[in-house]
Amino acid sequence: MQAEIKGINEECGIFGIWGHEKAAELTYYGLHAMQHRGQEGAGVVVNDGKRLKGHKGLGLVNDVFKQMDFCDFPGEVAIGHVRYSTQGGKVIENVQPLLFHSQKGGMALAQNGSIMNAYQLRGELEEQGSIMQTSSDTEVLAHLIKKGGREVSASSIADALNKIEGAYTFLILTEKKMYAALDPSGIHPLSIGRLKDAYVVASETCAFDQIGAAFLREVLPGELVTISDEGIQTERFAFRKQRKLCAMEYVYLSRPDSNLNHVNVHTSRKEMGKELAREAPADADIVIGVPDSSISAAIGYAEEIGLPYEMGIIKNRYVGRTFIKPSQQLREQGVKMKLSPVRGIIEGKRVVMIDDSIVRGTTSKRIVNLLKDAGAEEVHVRIASPPILYPCFYGIDMSTRKELIAANHTLDEICDIIGADSVAYLSEEGLEKAIVKSKTIHQGICTACMTGEYPVPLPDDAFDKVREETSASGRSEGNV
Amino acid sequence: MQAEIKGINEECGIFGIWGHEKAAELTYYGLHAMQHRGQEGAGVVVNDGKRLKGHKGLGLVNDVFKQMDFCDFPGEVAIGHVRYSTQGGKVIENVQPLLFHSQKGGMALAQNGSIMNAYQLRGELEEQGSIMQTSSDTEVLAHLIKKGGREVSASSIADALNKIEGAYTFLILTEKKMYAALDPSGIHPLSIGRLKDAYVVASETCAFDQIGAAFLREVLPGELVTISDEGIQTERFAFRKQRKLCAMEYVYLSRPDSNLNHVNVHTSRKEMGKELAREAPADADIVIGVPDSSISAAIGYAEEIGLPYEMGIIKNRYVGRTFIKPSQQLREQGVKMKLSPVRGIIEGKRVVMIDDSIVRGTTSKRIVNLLKDAGAEEVHVRIASPPILYPCFYGIDMSTRKELIAANHTLDEICDIIGADSVAYLSEEGLEKAIVKSKTIHQGICTACMTGEYPVPLPDDAFDKVREETSASGRSEGNV
Amino acid sequence: MQAEIKGINEECGIFGIWGHEKAAELTYYGLHAMQHRGQEGAGVVVNDGKRLKGHKGLGLVNDVFKQMDFCDFPGEVAIGHVRYSTQGGKVIENVQPLLFHSQKGGMALAQNGSIMNAYQLRGELEEQGSIMQTSSDTEVLAHLIKKGGREVSASSIADALNKIEGAYTFLILTEKKMYAALDPSGIHPLSIGRLKDAYVVASETCAFDQIGAAFLREVLPGELVTISDEGIQTERFAFRKQRKLCAMEYVYLSRPDSNLNHVNVHTSRKEMGKELAREAPADADIVIGVPDSSISAAIGYAEEIGLPYEMGIIKNRYVGRTFIKPSQQLREQGVKMKLSPVRGIIEGKRVVMIDDSIVRGTTSKRIVNLLKDAGAEEVHVRIASPPILYPCFYGIDMSTRKELIAANHTLDEICDIIGADSVAYLSEEGLEKAIVKSKTIHQGICTACMTGEYPVPLPDDAFDKVREETSASGRSEGNV
Amino acid sequence: MQAEIKGINEECGIFGIWGHEKAAELTYYGLHAMQHRGQEGAGVVVNDGKRLKGHKGLGLVNDVFKQMDFCDFPGEVAIGHVRYSTQGGKVIENVQPLLFHSQKGGMALAQNGSIMNAYQLRGELEEQGSIMQTSSDTEVLAHLIKKGGREVSASSIADALNKIEGAYTFLILTEKKMYAALDPSGIHPLSIGRLKDAYVVASETCAFDQIGAAFLREVLPGELVTISDEGIQTERFAFRKQRKLCAMEYVYLSRPDSNLNHVNVHTSRKEMGKELAREAPADADIVIGVPDSSISAAIGYAEEIGLPYEMGIIKNRYVGRTFIKPSQQLREQGVKMKLSPVRGIIEGKRVVMIDDSIVRGTTSKRIVNLLKDAGAEEVHVRIASPPILYPCFYGIDMSTRKELIAANHTLDEICDIIGADSVAYLSEEGLEKAIVKSKTIHQGICTACMTGEYPVPLPDDAFDKVREETSASGRSEGNV
Repeated sequence: MQAEIKGINEECGIFGIWGHEKAAELTYYGLHAMQHRGQEGAGVVVNDGKRLKGHKGLGLVNDVFKQMDFCDFPGEVAIGHVRYSTQGGKVIENVQPLLFHSQKGGMALAQNGSIMNAYQLRGELEEQGSIMQTSSDTEVLAHLIKKGGREVSASSIADALNKIEGAYTFLILTEKKMYAALDPSGIHPLSIGRLKDAYVVASETCAFDQIGAAFLREVLPGELVTISDEGIQTERFAFRKQRKLCAMEYVYLSRPDSNLNHVNVHTSRKEMGKELAREAPADADIVIGVPDSSISAAIGYAEEIGLPYEMGIIKNRYVGRTFIKPSQQLREQGVKMKLSPVRGIIEGKRVVMIDDSIVRGTTSKRIVNLLKDAGAEEVHVRIASPPILYPCFYGIDMSTRKELIAANHTLDEICDIIGADSVAYLSEEGLEKAIVKSKTIHQGICTACMTGEYPVPLPDDAFDKVREETSASGRSEGNV
Repeated sequence: MQAEIKGINEECGIFGIWGHEKAAELTYYGLHAMQHRGQEGAGVVVNDGKRLKGHKGLGLVNDVFKQMDFCDFPGEVAIGHVRYSTQGGKVIENVQPLLFHSQKGGMALAQNGSIMNAYQLRGELEEQGSIMQTSSDTEVLAHLIKKGGREVSASSIADALNKIEGAYTFLILTEKKMYAALDPSGIHPLSIGRLKDAYVVASETCAFDQIGAAFLREVLPGELVTISDEGIQTERFAFRKQRKLCAMEYVYLSRPDSNLNHVNVHTSRKEMGKELAREAPADADIVIGVPDSSISAAIGYAEEIGLPYEMGIIKNRYVGRTFIKPSQQLREQGVKMKLSPVRGIIEGKRVVMIDDSIVRGTTSKRIVNLLKDAGAEEVHVRIASPPILYPCFYGIDMSTRKELIAANHTLDEICDIIGADSVAYLSEEGLEKAIVKSKTIHQGICTACMTGEYPVPLPDDAFDKVREETSASGRSEGNV
Repeated sequence: MQAEIKGINEECGIFGIWGHEKAAELTYYGLHAMQHRGQEGAGVVVNDGKRLKGHKGLGLVNDVFKQMDFCDFPGEVAIGHVRYSTQGGKVIENVQPLLFHSQKGGMALAQNGSIMNAYQLRGELEEQGSIMQTSSDTEVLAHLIKKGGREVSASSIADALNKIEGAYTFLILTEKKMYAALDPSGIHPLSIGRLKDAYVVASETCAFDQIGAAFLREVLPGELVTISDEGIQTERFAFRKQRKLCAMEYVYLSRPDSNLNHVNVHTSRKEMGKELAREAPADADIVIGVPDSSISAAIGYAEEIGLPYEMGIIKNRYVGRTFIKPSQQLREQGVKMKLSPVRGIIEGKRVVMIDDSIVRGTTSKRIVNLLKDAGAEEVHVRIASPPILYPCFYGIDMSTRKELIAANHTLDEICDIIGADSVAYLSEEGLEKAIVKSKTIHQGICTACMTGEYPVPLPDDAFDKVREETSASGRSEGNV
Repeated sequence: MQAEIKGINEECGIFGIWGHEKAAELTYYGLHAMQHRGQEGAGVVVNDGKRLKGHKGLGLVNDVFKQMDFCDFPGEVAIGHVRYSTQGGKVIENVQPLLFHSQKGGMALAQNGSIMNAYQLRGELEEQGSIMQTSSDTEVLAHLIKKGGREVSASSIADALNKIEGAYTFLILTEKKMYAALDPSGIHPLSIGRLKDAYVVASETCAFDQIGAAFLREVLPGELVTISDEGIQTERFAFRKQRKLCAMEYVYLSRPDSNLNHVNVHTSRKEMGKELAREAPADADIVIGVPDSSISAAIGYAEEIGLPYEMGIIKNRYVGRTFIKPSQQLREQGVKMKLSPVRGIIEGKRVVMIDDSIVRGTTSKRIVNLLKDAGAEEVHVRIASPPILYPCFYGIDMSTRKELIAANHTLDEICDIIGADSVAYLSEEGLEKAIVKSKTIHQGICTACMTGEYPVPLPDDAFDKVREETSASGRSEGNV
């Protein structure tokens, strides 16, 4: 029962800063830069010199923080979190950082990722009398750290991390220290930067650029970093494994101006587009990309194949949460929502339409339809990543990618379903070539959702659970 | 350190209903009727037949619930809470009911009152590895109930209640049962009502009237009531002591239409006014009361002494949280806020001004001043309760009543300070006579704040702690 | 057609101040004190020394002004308005003051009351090319003043006033002067006050008390007052007639702390109660009043007849616009809204229930019902004003009082309909005695709605029009 | 005095629909598509079959319309407006459509553009007794149409249009007809479309695509189109002059997916980029564009010159009105706002930075600076339009372009000021070539702001007035 107490599948962004007099405000800007990683909720915990103090809320970073006066949150140390969750429970309790107070001091935790054995660990803890208020994996880690009344330290954290299996990055804050940790396979990104005398930690480097901080280095797989007034200390809490940085971070999740494991995201996407052009050229007049995440790949494709890149689809920037959605009747009559084809560009043209991925196929079908309605003579769909065949258990929302079209249909069928004149995917080799310059233990990507090879072991019944859960919820694929 | 993890002093209102198809909505109306018991936050937890589901927020009941669609909260069982707290931490975490989920089921708790040994119990729990997210006493009880992984039952709750010392009423909800408990001295009120087939529990009977429920009986001191589909079951978790129902509930806290321990609040106030007229008559032209809580006593005084009762002070009903407060300069020039004297009534008159109590004296001084400015020839202040000399540790906000004027000044000095022509208080005997018809073990009031005789033992350092805490915060006395 | 361009029937409050550096802010407090006169919209126009600048909005004064920073509205002169309208068009355009700009300067107008010949005047103006944006009578006056390109002056205003027939008070502001006018019969109240060096004008004197201003005098019927840096100048624009101050201002419309034509409203209500006790005594145990406007009369009745006044009905102060109204089903089950009877007081008693007036009878019926349900043995309804038999055309919302129960039923029938044990009204003589101390040309009340004697002539088809209009709209009688 | 009653300089968007049962809702979507033309306010007027009914507000289309329930606005005919104004007066009164009611019927007006002789006309009208509530030119036209009590008709509108000199498009709605007009030089765009049986009129064709309407034709210069249940009728109200469609509509104002005078905006921008590459090539590694309006030109430049186009600057999509702007201190420390350079792309590169125009130069300077800070070796600024040397009086905000850098500095000085390694502009010939395929009376652009050749005569003191006005206000150039 109770899906909400399992807590897998969270794509999020985390941010921390140690040693700047405007810690909370800079955390706001850092989270803002990572808004694309989670629009469901945001929070910040600041150390005001004496104790930890939090503010969090549901909604966008701006919505949450407009209610907060930074003057009420002085302090030189802060951590923050933006949250996206695939699960129904959009409740304030689950918004992070989680903040616990005890008579000996406070502890705040922020996590990006998933713990595979959370359900089992939670059961064991509850058997022993632990009570939990959230359905977040993060609360499980908090209990493990404090188990038996232990104090929060690098040692108690390392012991707790050794009990969990997962794909995660953590920031943990006490009144005295800030801790950052990355799972042994390094499935998610986490970097350290420097802003004058302050240390900064963030899921994506775009947060550093946002606040004018310089990139220092990545947190390494299996590393626990301790930041305090004494500076940075580091230790291994687990043996390092082959790096398996999530390929989807490059394909669509991260911001194009971020660098992940020293590779710029826009550049990798452009390379994917170029690889795709070499693997699957199309005889056409123009190349267009589906905004926003497929623009880089489309430009790369156009450059490589020597066709003009055109702005064939416009994304309406003003469609927000207050947008009144057209009724079914009006949509059938042609009222558009977020994406509009540009008739003046499309009409009479043979179009290559680049998209970053296909999940259920519904969105692709709608866009192809829009293009044909706008007068496109042919639409050749080119996907800048390989087919998605398996669910992700490590924090990327593939539950919403549930009726995975590629898992159930041949290429020809897909072409038929979405109404394209031709469809082609990038190969796995092409994807890897575009991202990984030289494959070493330090460089490597997780392609579990394409290959089914999961680097972190799954619980026995993982597939069953996902199937159940995904029957209820699902990230909207966006509106066309 | 960390005042926020002690958690004493909470005046609140609790409400529960078992067996009505509109449980959440009726809880809303019940809480609404008890809005005066707490404006800081409100929450509801409903059992939708399978699991417990909560909604809570900071602000008035209306503010919190306008964001909630009752259609999303189906279910026949619900509990709710309105919160007032004397402490700084107006944070969403502390808003009740607290809701905990485990793989075996959920538990929600709502409390009115204070636990005396919460600090010590919390320390012990933390030593053993418990971690807490709130500074509420209620979380301590939750941990005691679930200690060692016990299931929630009348037996585990009774064991937990036996570990705490305090002045409290509790509602505890699981997927299967609802529990209601009152401390052995019965310091706070808690009643059971009936609405068709449903059972209702509420801090004040006005909540029953609001929803059209009939009063059934009071929960008895030391009683643990279990409500389920099998009906009501009851047991004693502690020996019953002399009833010590908080006198301040009658004096100013409760709504005039509520009955506490079978005594109507308005009627008791009118009696206090009559007693006061007998004890301390004044030679005057008219009698006025300070709105709203002193109106009943003023009418009683006027009736007894044979003077006309007049509406000499008007309370502006539209002063809400969006009211723009006049600057000091404008206030000095006479711009009023909430209370305005009525010149047409006051001018040239000798006035008896009835108030329910004096705390720091600042408000009394302002009102006397207003009356004199409006042309009152004499102002005779009559207080419908005895002098407050001691802090309350049981949930009534006497910390804010910190610079207790009566504890530090003689009657003559008080008269001077507030600028009155005479001042008199009701005697303790007069108060008791007005409230308690026949003093038995079932009838009796707590007058600790007037006498210093505390029915529930205090922790050794209670007075010291209060002194510290109260230096920082304080309920505003209201605006004149 | 187009009901919205007729514009009769407006109960409102107007306020003006000349010569205080915080003019806009004081206008806010003044309007706030008169919030009961109109909750539909509010506005202010300030003269910042060079030009007139306005801010207005729909909703309560607080709602409108919380969006306004008074620092953006400097200036020593301002006028303001709170609006209640009986008509459908709750649109921002109709919110006053109306503000017009021309190359020669600005003009702002605020009105309380109605112009009888507005429809005809509007037609004539439109024939000549005038175009209008509002359905307000006030815009008609503006056009009359500026007709033929005249400048705004005491002379052009007096000429315009002489063209209109009505029951009105006006405030008109230019960059150089402020004008205040009252119709020749003085049907509505308008007073002048003094706050240090500043002059203040307001519909009710409670606005003076609110800001600490002293009452100076009433504006006289047919008087046009000009306020400028040269002080106050006055002139007659029409012969003074017998004063006919609206009786309903005393009965329920004005605030009890206001003085109208030197008579305090609370005192007049108490007198109405006493007269009523003498005219229509009841054999009963207690006297109660329907909150808020009938409390004074109830106290007077109780004093005169020697029965105890009790708080038998409670009005919930927290029911605001965000209150979620109970469904019909829940109301039938007994869920209360604004008014709750106090069982502890009512039960087993013979009750005199004082109300200020009966309109359609529905509210009275509900309250009697509530009292009987709460255990009242007998309910004797006593109305502190005479039966309402005719509509009002002068600005009091009798259109909503459309199905006037007293116009269509005998006293016995009314008693039956509302379920009371007896019903009695105050006589016209009693009403007049309670309000008018010595009837002269200066003292006198309009009782058109009781007698059908209209002091200002009506247009030929007035009754027909009202009948049409009132079929659509109507002020809610309030919730019980 | 009184800048606000002159009313020049308005860039706006207008929309109208005749004959669709969801007229108001479709107007919402149409306005939404033209949101970029005005973010200050929006409004709609619908004909519900009997009368005109309006709703308008300050803010974005979504903000204004979320408060409006379309069910309350039934009707098959509607017009709407989005407003941008260069002047201080962001007041609700100025938001269009303006709506006037008379006893004979209503009239609503919406305008895009400016009337040159508005000040003089307004003065004449006021001399004759007209009074005005807005500072909008549009109200002047309304008075001209209704002058002498005339009815609204094609004839009275044509007469009124012949009295005004300007650059304008108008939509005028009565209960019976909808009128659309374009000034004789056709300075602004206005098109007619078809949605099933309905006629649609809009400033930009992107509004047609948004609602699924088909483009029919442009409104011609000097044409007055009458739409009614009888269909479309057309007449000339003035001799047609050489078409002078504002060049800036192509350069930056319109949406890339719109077609203006049969030329697609994106395509024209790409052509500008290509022309620019031919005229002013740069020896560099990559080409980048300043988002959003310069992207098309940058892609064109890159294609023509054979360099890769890269996403060197990211625009943060989530910066909205609730964004908390970094303090000066934090901005100096490098905290970014809307635009962030992508270090991973820029570093070590020689960059061609394409922008659509330079106004004051401040923004260009900031962006060059950002690029250099991000490690660009060289920055070659290329501007895809000619230097702006003169103010615009026809509705494009050049008052904010007041300290026109190009009017006061040589190319070398500009290069120095903005810190670039080289700067070049597109020539006038290049611009014309990119937009106008064959110059006829039907095709031609207004380049007054570049050449000083104003197609519509200016009032004598136009330059003086602009100088005054622009000292106070100014469109923000956007945040970097």
